[in-house]
Amino acid sequence: MTQKIIFDYNNMMADKLGAHGITASDIDKIAPQIKSAFDTVMSEKGKGMMGWSDMPYNQGEIVQEILETAEYVRANFEYFVVLGIGGSALGPIAVFQALCHLHHNDLPKAKRGGAPKFYVEDNVDPERMQALLDVIDPEKTCFNVITKSGATSETMSQYLIISDILEKAYGTDAARHIIATTDSKKGNLIKIAREKGYRTFYIPDGVGGRFSEICPVGLLPAAVLGIDIREMLAGCAYMDEICRDADPRRNMALMAATLQYIAMQKGCNVTVCMPYADSLKYISDWFCQLWGESLGKRYDKEGKEVFVGQTPVKSLGVTDQHSQVQLYAEGPFDKVITFIAVDKYRTDVTIAEGCADIPDVHFLCGHTMSELINTERRATAYALTKAGKLNHTIILPEVNAHTLGQLLYFFMLETAFAGALLNINTFNQPGVEEGKNATYAMFGRVGYETKKAELDSAPQDSADYVL
Amino acid sequence: MTQKIIFDYNNMMADKLGAHGITASDIDKIAPQIKSAFDTVMSEKGKGMMGWSDMPYNQGEIVQEILETAEYVRANFEYFVVLGIGGSALGPIAVFQALCHLHHNDLPKAKRGGAPKFYVEDNVDPERMQALLDVIDPEKTCFNVITKSGATSETMSQYLIISDILEKAYGTDAARHIIATTDSKKGNLIKIAREKGYRTFYIPDGVGGRFSEICPVGLLPAAVLGIDIREMLAGCAYMDEICRDADPRRNMALMAATLQYIAMQKGCNVTVCMPYADSLKYISDWFCQLWGESLGKRYDKEGKEVFVGQTPVKSLGVTDQHSQVQLYAEGPFDKVITFIAVDKYRTDVTIAEGCADIPDVHFLCGHTMSELINTERRATAYALTKAGKLNHTIILPEVNAHTLGQLLYFFMLETAFAGALLNINTFNQPGVEEGKNATYAMFGRVGYETKKAELDSAPQDSADYVL
Repeated sequence: MTQKIIFDYNNMMADKLGAHGITASDIDKIAPQIKSAFDTVMSEKGKGMMGWSDMPYNQGEIVQEILETAEYVRANFEYFVVLGIGGSALGPIAVFQALCHLHHNDLPKAKRGGAPKFYVEDNVDPERMQALLDVIDPEKTCFNVITKSGATSETMSQYLIISDILEKAYGTDAARHIIATTDSKKGNLIKIAREKGYRTFYIPDGVGGRFSEICPVGLLPAAVLGIDIREMLAGCAYMDEICRDADPRRNMALMAATLQYIAMQKGCNVTVCMPYADSLKYISDWFCQLWGESLGKRYDKEGKEVFVGQTPVKSLGVTDQHSQVQLYAEGPFDKVITFIAVDKYRTDVTIAEGCADIPDVHFLCGHTMSELINTERRATAYALTKAGKLNHTIILPEVNAHTLGQLLYFFMLETAFAGALLNINTFNQPGVEEGKNATYAMFGRVGYETKKAELDSAPQDSADYVL
Repeated sequence: MTQKIIFDYNNMMADKLGAHGITASDIDKIAPQIKSAFDTVMSEKGKGMMGWSDMPYNQGEIVQEILETAEYVRANFEYFVVLGIGGSALGPIAVFQALCHLHHNDLPKAKRGGAPKFYVEDNVDPERMQALLDVIDPEKTCFNVITKSGATSETMSQYLIISDILEKAYGTDAARHIIATTDSKKGNLIKIAREKGYRTFYIPDGVGGRFSEICPVGLLPAAVLGIDIREMLAGCAYMDEICRDADPRRNMALMAATLQYIAMQKGCNVTVCMPYADSLKYISDWFCQLWGESLGKRYDKEGKEVFVGQTPVKSLGVTDQHSQVQLYAEGPFDKVITFIAVDKYRTDVTIAEGCADIPDVHFLCGHTMSELINTERRATAYALTKAGKLNHTIILPEVNAHTLGQLLYFFMLETAFAGALLNINTFNQPGVEEGKNATYAMFGRVGYETKKAELDSAPQDSADYVL
């Protein structure tokens, strides 16, 4: 029987929250907008930049090839390193943390299920690159270079450094250490890969970085780690199938988007993603890109300036109860909190007997850690609800490849519906161009002379504002 | 010569940002408030809950004892595990990441400078506890239990589990594996420690969790890791000394607080902490507790409901340029971005020659990674400034114990000044009590019967709101 994830939005509603809550009439009032957003998403599925919505269904052959390559990697290498940034890194990190041992790299290989040690390099900090080189042995390392365009400065810098090391050491044999995941036709990396003879996997058209975890970008690293990627895709397909109803009361992704949209209109410009499980910690990072980059937009589809976008915040229960919950409870009514709960953890630990003479401590004894973490989650939801703060809970029956697939796809759909409600282009990111172009200009890249002139003529910093 | 960290707030000002910026007159207009906030903090220093401000100066003896204990730990154990949460965890994690090798635990002991492997357990997820037990050998492990009251459910649960394992294996010898950092007089943990004969370190009065990194809470783990804690404290003292001027134009912590305060009044309810260095990644987590828990308050000092508090957001450059910068650039004018820059990284890596026929990639060759990361930071600041988004930069000449001490103390002072400007109690956290009490009630703890009755009579969840 399928273990369906559950979306509980009781604590978003006025029945619980009073004046700060959302009413049935708030939802009904925007029924035409909801219907229109639903129709937009449904009509765009599988087309243009919604190519990702076909991926739960159309990857049978590619999955087979990924599994074969994963076997090759596992048999031949001790380290698997992803060189990628943004969507090419956040998905692989999130799925690794969710479905592998929490101290994977500290375990001996047998206890890692035969999987290599795993590193994802998503920065260009020289100290980080040197630190990686200090702990891997290039001879035993397979590098997965991931960039659709092959023009991502960070990833291509890493590639240049790594391929230089490999080629100096192993000559043309270097190619066996590199797998390129990129566009099948356009861009630099496919050109390089063909020239050098790298194994390649393709990022399909219509799959932006933040929607790429369920294509080879995420599937290859997951398969190398021994994760059941067919189950993950089945979880995605399952969520896709249960989110096809135009009525938000029968479509959890559409309801989630609707509630967030109403909350935004009421002034909630912050959304907190707070899983109560270390395994789901980096789902928040992945979600923050998905939500932030998709919904943070200056213009709506009609070209009107709107400057919309909720700021996503990553949080972790119970840890951040001792850091952020004071603010959530007592601060402004400016946020929506999404708890992610786990019904059944994959292991449990009983709190041992002790301190019989100290009632403050002894009441814990005999309970399990899973009771404690879930009780604290419910208590925190109760406290925030009592304080009038919008919150809802996504419950995973347990964390496995199928429920994780459901969760990823739920958030992807929720984001698509939210973007449609906001009437924006959910799938582009024009706001990052300015910084990229300024970097090129500062590096003296040919073709960026005008930008360089603009930078040179910008107002100078004042020493008065430097302390 | 002291390497002073620098605070550059050019990009907060109207000279750069136009209408979205802050003017000299915005600052002058609140001069009396600034003066009053300054006086409040200065008069409270060393007293009440500002006991922490003496810590750069009054720990000579305790530092000696910490260093001796650290030597004992390094000589006798292979693993050092902190059991703590909130302020007892975030500081140790931040300083470890900043000043140790980025893959410390993956290195052989000799390359770790003789330091043990290091884990900080700041959650009660059973999978996380089991994962820890899978990778450490209790016989070779020293556990540092940190809680001022000894009533922190999470830490005491961990303590019960660990002490049970140790006592079953080693009997009374178990005591040598545990160091307690707690209150010297009150609370449960000091009582237990005396009974069992644990080594102890004390958390002074007037030092709340989020201000405790520079007391034994943070100093012992840092010393065990081989970090120069005297230099760290010297950095704190140095920052303290250069932030004693009542004029914000000559006091970087006061100016930082003033600018944040003005930004809050203009509607910026979000503050982003974005270091451009993997080593400083967890400074953001530490800062987020400090800022969020200190400033997120329902009442001001006069008891008036204010519901204030900026939501702190952790971000990492350049990584989050591919995740969050789209939102920062194009989204609402609701945030202040604090970049943390590093002038000179402790190592550098040159981007190797290659791809001579691909100009998109080849322009990178010959540059270093530190040039790339710093250029991208400046380009991002430029792009955000051009988009009218408030940002400023803290520059560390390099990352070392002294500059890190300066940075920690800068943020502590900035927080104190900001709390005084907001006219709130910066040092309490009443908003977490409700959740704690609900947990106790749900666990059936004696004395919480009334709360239990309250929970039982709360409005029930509706099945209609569960999808």
